[in-house]
Order: sequence, then structure tokens, then C-alpha cells
Amino acid sequence: MMMNDNYYAVIMAGGGGTRLWPLSRVANPKQMLPLVGERSLFQISVDRLDGIFTPERILVVTVADQAAKLQAQCPQIPVENFLLEPLPRGTASVVGLAAVALAARHPQAVMAVLTADHIFKYEDYFRSVLRAAFDAAQQGHLVTLGIAPTFPSTGYGYIQQGDRVANYQDLKAYSVRRFVEKPDELRARQMLESGDFAWNSGMFVWRVDRIQDEFDRQMPALTSILNEISKNWNQPQRESVIQRLWPQIHPETIDYGIMENAQDVIVIPARGLGWNDVGSWEALFDVLPADEQGNIAVGGRHLALDTRQTLVFNTHPERLIVTIGLDDVVVVDTGDVLMVCKKDQAQKVRQVVQELKKTGRQYL
Amino acid sequence: MMMNDNYYAVIMAGGGGTRLWPLSRVANPKQMLPLVGERSLFQISVDRLDGIFTPERILVVTVADQAAKLQAQCPQIPVENFLLEPLPRGTASVVGLAAVALAARHPQAVMAVLTADHIFKYEDYFRSVLRAAFDAAQQGHLVTLGIAPTFPSTGYGYIQQGDRVANYQDLKAYSVRRFVEKPDELRARQMLESGDFAWNSGMFVWRVDRIQDEFDRQMPALTSILNEISKNWNQPQRESVIQRLWPQIHPETIDYGIMENAQDVIVIPARGLGWNDVGSWEALFDVLPADEQGNIAVGGRHLALDTRQTLVFNTHPERLIVTIGLDDVVVVDTGDVLMVCKKDQAQKVRQVVQELKKTGRQYL
Repeated sequence: MMMNDNYYAVIMAGGGGTRLWPLSRVANPKQMLPLVGERSLFQISVDRLDGIFTPERILVVTVADQAAKLQAQCPQIPVENFLLEPLPRGTASVVGLAAVALAARHPQAVMAVLTADHIFKYEDYFRSVLRAAFDAAQQGHLVTLGIAPTFPSTGYGYIQQGDRVANYQDLKAYSVRRFVEKPDELRARQMLESGDFAWNSGMFVWRVDRIQDEFDRQMPALTSILNEISKNWNQPQRESVIQRLWPQIHPETIDYGIMENAQDVIVIPARGLGWNDVGSWEALFDVLPADEQGNIAVGGRHLALDTRQTLVFNTHPERLIVTIGLDDVVVVDTGDVLMVCKKDQAQKVRQVVQELKKTGRQYL
Repeated sequence: MMMNDNYYAVIMAGGGGTRLWPLSRVANPKQMLPLVGERSLFQISVDRLDGIFTPERILVVTVADQAAKLQAQCPQIPVENFLLEPLPRGTASVVGLAAVALAARHPQAVMAVLTADHIFKYEDYFRSVLRAAFDAAQQGHLVTLGIAPTFPSTGYGYIQQGDRVANYQDLKAYSVRRFVEKPDELRARQMLESGDFAWNSGMFVWRVDRIQDEFDRQMPALTSILNEISKNWNQPQRESVIQRLWPQIHPETIDYGIMENAQDVIVIPARGLGWNDVGSWEALFDVLPADEQGNIAVGGRHLALDTRQTLVFNTHPERLIVTIGLDDVVVVDTGDVLMVCKKDQAQKVRQVVQELKKTGRQYL
């Protein structure tokens, strides 16, 4: 069933993460990659909204470099729904820009802020959770979509739940006591055991007027820039105004800039979404099908001898990759770069990227 | 100092070993590869004879497929010194063919049978040992060059030494009690500890008339074919006679066919030659220079993070190979094939080659 006419989905698709290097590149970041099949993570994120949002009510915020490729991947989304950040200035400005665009479209707009590079195994359930969040947002709450934690992750931020405020579509919603930064393992384990913390998924739903009030109150400098953009929204000079003002924005995330001190924030901690942020090579082991030895082969041919729990990502169909005697290894072959990495050290890819940045742009 | 005019070196260069696959290929076998620097193992084997044999007294026995490439690698060796086996029929026929060629050149010819794909760290000493072996061979002995074992290898054949027979150039020579096939580790350790076993290097020195007597006595069928070839040696039909008769030869090694039951066989067990048969990827760790972490990078760029005792063989200068968290791994990248192999399982490369043979010639 379609969402109400004043409900919109805003997909944040401007990221340039390096955690899946060497596959993810500056010119071809993670959301554009077909990591788990034929469709890119961005396409999967759009497909997931089928049946609840028409393409006209899906906005995509991205950077200029990526816009053309994203449009080509999802041609059903109208061109004018792609909003361009001239420079990356953090998620606060992304949300602010989308709010300006939506306020110009519908005075009672309600917006979901969604990610472009996550996977939900249970997409029907994701749509139910989203529907509940819109119900809550319509009433004026700032809704954060939480993920009930399944292991003591040190890689995510957490949200401490407070009092139960209501049920929406049979889902429990809680006031938010506080946001917690990425913890160490001990603290993560304590939060997991306490049962009243959810992972911060980075996805939110709120009325545009409500979030604009928060910008007004908490980020006046950004708000004055956004107001200037808003005044020129339906004018020919809109783009030049954005180009001129955007560099003045101080980079800030929506979490730090708004959510931590916002009023009437609630969390809907979802269980069993099968959520995966595909945040590392290790994370891919949870979403790609493995053979009996736990090996995962993507792309070209893989011949495995005494090999277990090993992911081989081979972008060249004619290339043969042979592994002998390996356990828990990730092999990624992109043609110009070959990476061979112990699975539990995949996060060190970032150090490699830092190292390569020192010597120029090659391989990045 | 040059060897006597009747002394010849015969390099057996027809092998097509698969233990260094995927670098070693049917069309580009191990001896042709520059595994330890700019020069191929074949070139190194020829260079090693500088100053003791003129190129005119170096013969190369190989298969037709490889002859042109080997000639191109060592153009100083006269074309007529390349003897071609129409088909591989084992080292007995190789030695027999070389003996026929040398008997036609010099009635008192003495020949060293040498390998094309081994490395000697101490080449001066190798030349001394060879000189001693020629002295012994001149007197009528069949001389096997032994290598004093340095570890309980299960990969080589052994030679049990008998009585001391003489010294040649200050090197001790012993009668040969028997040849021993590749042993298990327990037996290898016993032989190592006993002190009277040497590894069979596959290199021999003998008078041509002496070895021909042994062929006569022990391999009459092969001898009759060799005699027929010998009769036609200086005739225009030589090649067509070889082509016609060669397929009838029963494949046999010189060790089984001749040496085990030959008369007056002696062994000179050399110590400290720094001999390496480059018989596996693991063997390369002993001959290539490593950095402080024990890593060896050959070819293109290698960026190592928390990586130790790892060999990266990269045939593409522009390609970056990144390793993270690896210990004791061999990475070989040939463009069409990438192999990632735990170092101590490098011998399983043969299984991969067997597997690939089932599906055709690609990658072989």
C-alpha cells in the first residue's frame, strides 16, 4: 500500500567510503557497486521502496561526481529529484537541503532519511517498520530507526531507550535517553546485555516543519544558508546560490548537529530486519552465499584447495584465482589492484588507503 | 682455467615441470624463467660454465617446442649444439643422444650431464667440484655429483656412500653402495644422521665410451636405436631417422635405466655448494632476498601490512598487490591466473595442475 501523498523518502547517496577498497573507489563508491548480485546497493535501496513510494516521491542527495551514474542506475527517479551537494559537508546539510526541497513541494511533507548502501534481508518487514515510523513522525516525533543489537559491536553508535511512549503498527516506540558513540567491547557488551540500547542505523523519519524548527534552534548558521537557498528555490539562480553558499557550511553530522539535543526524539528499535551495513569485507560474509567450506566466490573462476571461510572477489571473468591452504582470507582482485587480507583484519584497508593517499591518486 | 679439449658439458633443458605453476607453463617452463633476477635459470646454468667451457663445448638437449627460446636466451651456443628430442622419453635417452653426438665429435670425449634449472650460490666452488669429477671420470669412473644433505628431505633421492676410493682435487670420492628412492621423513632423518648418504643431484660426469658400454650392457633396445642414429649422424637423413625411431623408445630415467646397476660408480658428495633445485615455491624463499619481515617481493609493487614470510610474485609492473595480516603465504600473479597459497602447502600446486588438465589447456 502506497504511503500518503505527503510522505517522501530521501536517500543519502553521496558517501565515498573506503572500507571496501579496492573495489570501492573515489569514482565508484560502495553504493554504486553490485556487491550482492546484479543490482548495486543504491538500486537495491531504491527497489526496496517499490510499492510504498512512487519514484516521484523519492529524493536522492549526492555529490556532483556521482549524480550521473546514480541517475543511470535508477532512471525511473525524475532528474529534478537528484539534489547535488557541491561539496560534502556532512549529513546535517544533506538533511537540511532535502528539507528545503520538500518544504517547497508540500507544506505538510514528512520525510524518511534513508541510507543508500545498506542491506535488509527482510524487506517486507523493513517497509512495515518504515510505515510505523511515518505514523509516529506525522504526530510530531523525530523518529530514529534503531536496530536491536545482535552482538557487542564496537563499530556502531548506540541509542539508549527511555520510557515507552506508544505503539505504532504494533511496534514499540521509546523516548531517547541519549546517543552513545562507538563503544569499546566491554561497554558494548554491557549495553547489549542491558537490553535498552539500539544501534543507530543513521535512518530517521520526521515532519519537515519539525526538523526545520530544530535546525532553527540548534544550527542557526546553517539555517541562514538554507533559508537563502529556500528563497531562491524556484528561481533560475538556485544553483548558483547553492554553489556560492555551500562552501561556507561547517561540516557536521545530523547526529551531533541536531539529534543529540533535539526535542521529542523517539526510537523504534527494530528486531529481525536482517540489517547489514556492508561496512567491511568481513560484513560481506554475512550476506553472500557460501559453499560447504564457507567459501564465497564472486565473479570469475575460483579453484579452492584446502580452503575455508575465504571470500574471493574476482572482477575478471577470464581470470582464474586459485587458493591453497587458506582459512579466513579475503582476496579482492580489481585488475589494477590485488588485495589479500586476513578476514579479521579487513578494517586495516583504511590504513592502506591512507598510505596510498600520500603518493597521489593512483589506485584510489 | 679451461677444461681439456675433450671435456664437454651437456645441459638437459627439456623439462616441463609444474611445481612452479602458475609461473611455469607448458610453453614457458621453469628453466626459461628469470626466477632469481634478470637471467633465466637456463642462462644462469650456462653462465656458470664461463671460463671452463667454451660455448662450442656446451651441448643442450631439449624438446622442439623449447629450442628456439633457449637458443635466443643463449645465442653464444652454436645452433648445432642444440639436440632435439622429438618426444620426451626420459633422461636415459637424453644422455644416450648426447653421447652419440659427442662420440662423433671426439673419440675420447668426457661429458658432464648438468641440469638447466638449479641454482648454486657458490659457483666457483661448483666449478672446482666439476673439475674434480672430470678428473675422476677421465680415469673411467661413472661419477655422480652428490650433495651433502642439510636437512631430512623427503623430496630427493639419496646415494649411499661405500668405501673411499680416492681424492680428486682434494675432494673425497666414494664408491656407491646403492641408490635410494625418495624416503619418508623417518628414513630421511636416519640417512642424514648416518653421515654416509648424499642427495642425488641428477648431475653426472663420465667418459662417453664408458657410458656407452653401460647402455650396451643394460639397455640393449635403446642402444640399437642409438646405434642407428649414430650411423646416420653425419648424413642428411639424421633428423628423419631420429624422428622415425624416437617414438619407439621406452621412457626411462638414467638413474633407473643405468646408474643403479652400473659398474664403477662413484660419488663425490659436495658440501657448501649452496645448491637449490628451485623445486617449489617454498624453495624460492631460500634464494631470494627478503626484507626485515621476511617478505619477498618480485616484480610490481607490494604494499605489506602486518605481513611476514610472504612471497609476492607480481608479473605486472603497474599492478599493486596489498597484503594484510598474512604469514607464510605465497602470492603469484601472472595476469591470467592468481594463486594464493599457504607456503607449506605449495606442493599442492601439482593437484591444481592435474585438475586443470581435465578441462583443457587453458591456464597450463
